[in-house]
Amino acid sequence: MANTLNSGLEGITAAETRLSQINGEKGELLIRGSPIDELGGNASYEETVFLLLNGRLPAAEETDELRDTLASHRHICDEVQAVLQRAAREEKPAMDALRMGVAAANLGVADQDLREDVHRVIAVFPTIVAAYWRYRQGKERVTPRDDLRHAANFLYMLTGEDPSEARVAGLETYLNTVVDHGLNASTFTARVVVSTESDLISAATAAVGTLKGPLHGGAPGPVLEMLREVYETGDAEGYVRETLDAGERLMGFGHRVYRARDPRAAVLESAATSLYTEKEDIEFFETAQEFEDVATDLLAEYVPDRRLETNVEFYTAILLDGVGIPKDIFTTTFAISRVSGWMAHALEQLDDNRLIRPSSHYVGDTRRSWTPVEHR
Amino acid sequence: MANTLNSGLEGITAAETRLSQINGEKGELLIRGSPIDELGGNASYEETVFLLLNGRLPAAEETDELRDTLASHRHICDEVQAVLQRAAREEKPAMDALRMGVAAANLGVADQDLREDVHRVIAVFPTIVAAYWRYRQGKERVTPRDDLRHAANFLYMLTGEDPSEARVAGLETYLNTVVDHGLNASTFTARVVVSTESDLISAATAAVGTLKGPLHGGAPGPVLEMLREVYETGDAEGYVRETLDAGERLMGFGHRVYRARDPRAAVLESAATSLYTEKEDIEFFETAQEFEDVATDLLAEYVPDRRLETNVEFYTAILLDGVGIPKDIFTTTFAISRVSGWMAHALEQLDDNRLIRPSSHYVGDTRRSWTPVEHR
Repeated sequence: MANTLNSGLEGITAAETRLSQINGEKGELLIRGSPIDELGGNASYEETVFLLLNGRLPAAEETDELRDTLASHRHICDEVQAVLQRAAREEKPAMDALRMGVAAANLGVADQDLREDVHRVIAVFPTIVAAYWRYRQGKERVTPRDDLRHAANFLYMLTGEDPSEARVAGLETYLNTVVDHGLNASTFTARVVVSTESDLISAATAAVGTLKGPLHGGAPGPVLEMLREVYETGDAEGYVRETLDAGERLMGFGHRVYRARDPRAAVLESAATSLYTEKEDIEFFETAQEFEDVATDLLAEYVPDRRLETNVEFYTAILLDGVGIPKDIFTTTFAISRVSGWMAHALEQLDDNRLIRPSSHYVGDTRRSWTPVEHR
Repeated sequence: MANTLNSGLEGITAAETRLSQINGEKGELLIRGSPIDELGGNASYEETVFLLLNGRLPAAEETDELRDTLASHRHICDEVQAVLQRAAREEKPAMDALRMGVAAANLGVADQDLREDVHRVIAVFPTIVAAYWRYRQGKERVTPRDDLRHAANFLYMLTGEDPSEARVAGLETYLNTVVDHGLNASTFTARVVVSTESDLISAATAAVGTLKGPLHGGAPGPVLEMLREVYETGDAEGYVRETLDAGERLMGFGHRVYRARDPRAAVLESAATSLYTEKEDIEFFETAQEFEDVATDLLAEYVPDRRLETNVEFYTAILLDGVGIPKDIFTTTFAISRVSGWMAHALEQLDDNRLIRPSSHYVGDTRRSWTPVEHR
């Protein structure tokens, strides 16, 4: 047995996948062969989910069918609503509420097959998040509507109003863009869970708990606060120098995998451009773009040996804010997208399954005898 | 980047640990240096938890303090009870109910520190399982008692009656014996979750979902059914030959790690001997022991190249049945023990943390262009 310690499992290939390919050097991301810059702005979220699950883009009637299937699985039971209400009242983080809701997602549902579980899991994420958020505002929840697409219905449940086409388009681009990304920690967790032949709801719940961690789910909320602060002061350079002089990381820049600009940043930037132009609220957006330029130059000066460019969090913050998503539910909105990646990976794992069970190396005490309590 | 595929991560060392050491060749298991055959029958569960968390056996007053701390964290809120009630009414599996309850374990609790979360998580497992089981029987739940030890209180909550010392001792031996076991799939999941700097409740929830899978949590329930059947027919040899002739695995025998007899089997067998003698219900137990002898000999005949002996599930089924635990909650009782291992591993991971993120190797479609819907 090898005793070489691989504590982060970096560079260890734990799965073969047909779902997404990351080229960190070139800054490219393919979802089942589709470059993210083509898929992101063109597809509906339903089309992306179909692509991920089936390996090809759907015909018009297949998209409609998936939309209807997801719509029919949107409802959550009273007991789960009560749990979300309490989580909101106690101001638990949104990701905690999502974990609670997903863990109980098979209540009120007959025993299902794998494919139905996939649809159920994807369908309830927005319902859980929106209900929690409404309760956090001290409002009643808005029941899901069956006639709206996945993204539009989420925005509708947040406000009770029909969202504009521009906001729906912005959100769909976001959901398409972050739907899958190789074997990140939450996706890996989902695969470990089903590798024991457990179920998809357990896998999704575990993945939510993993994504909650700031080293993975990241910090798009704080990125937004940073950009708002710079928008107020107008001093991008001052902010960046102060952060880097203090030896701190600059939020929204750099990624473990990408050595070039995160390809998702460009897609989200382009969607944000359309949205902020539409909103006639272009000034904040322009400040953010200037901030990116200033920060990229200064990072090259401070950290010359690494190429640090904007990552997905940077434009996530800007785009989701433009769409009207409150920053406290940014990470749960990430989960609303990524759950489809988790489910696709779980199915792929089950398709050619092998229990995932690495080894540990014992470095603790060696054999010692039992001591009765009077001699301790 | 290495492209060698390690789909089960077998032989890959993903962590150093001071918690447990498995010697598969010799059939030995140490918990922080203590051989399982000494710890199993001697310690209270509180002593084992203290040992696991602190690396030494507690003084008498430290055991009392931990007992009181766990007792004070046993309560679950009304909303969680309502969820468990519904899960029971819909006859969801016990592990699903446990997943739902654990996911919501921070409701009604102020923000806590790591150490308090550890106690909270360990403390609520029996409460959740017992409440669910009472509801499954159409009964009211039994509120936890603060004056009982962890194991005794679990038995009390299942029936509403004071358990005998013999049953408590049998359950404690079981809980001690399966508390930790290297980097099994659920323990690994707990470490992956906290490696993102997520929280302990998320880790425990994810681990429950992983343990649910039959390739990990196993099948002590079916083992019991098998032994009951053989007890009725009296034909151990016939049962074993029929199973092996059909090319099926014999439940309760063989383990991925052990080449010798699972050292936990001996501890559980010894505890079962005491318990069944006390219960004057020794015949079923003797049948099970005869079954072990017959099956071990026949396995050596059918599978001469592998040494297949009883694993932990075999005597788990017998011991837990003797203790009075219904077979539908065997796996959740396993979780009631193992959660302490999960928490100890999560703390160990956080102590010297590195994000666990392996790689995947892309074997899917190569780059293809976006096709508008009218051309699909």
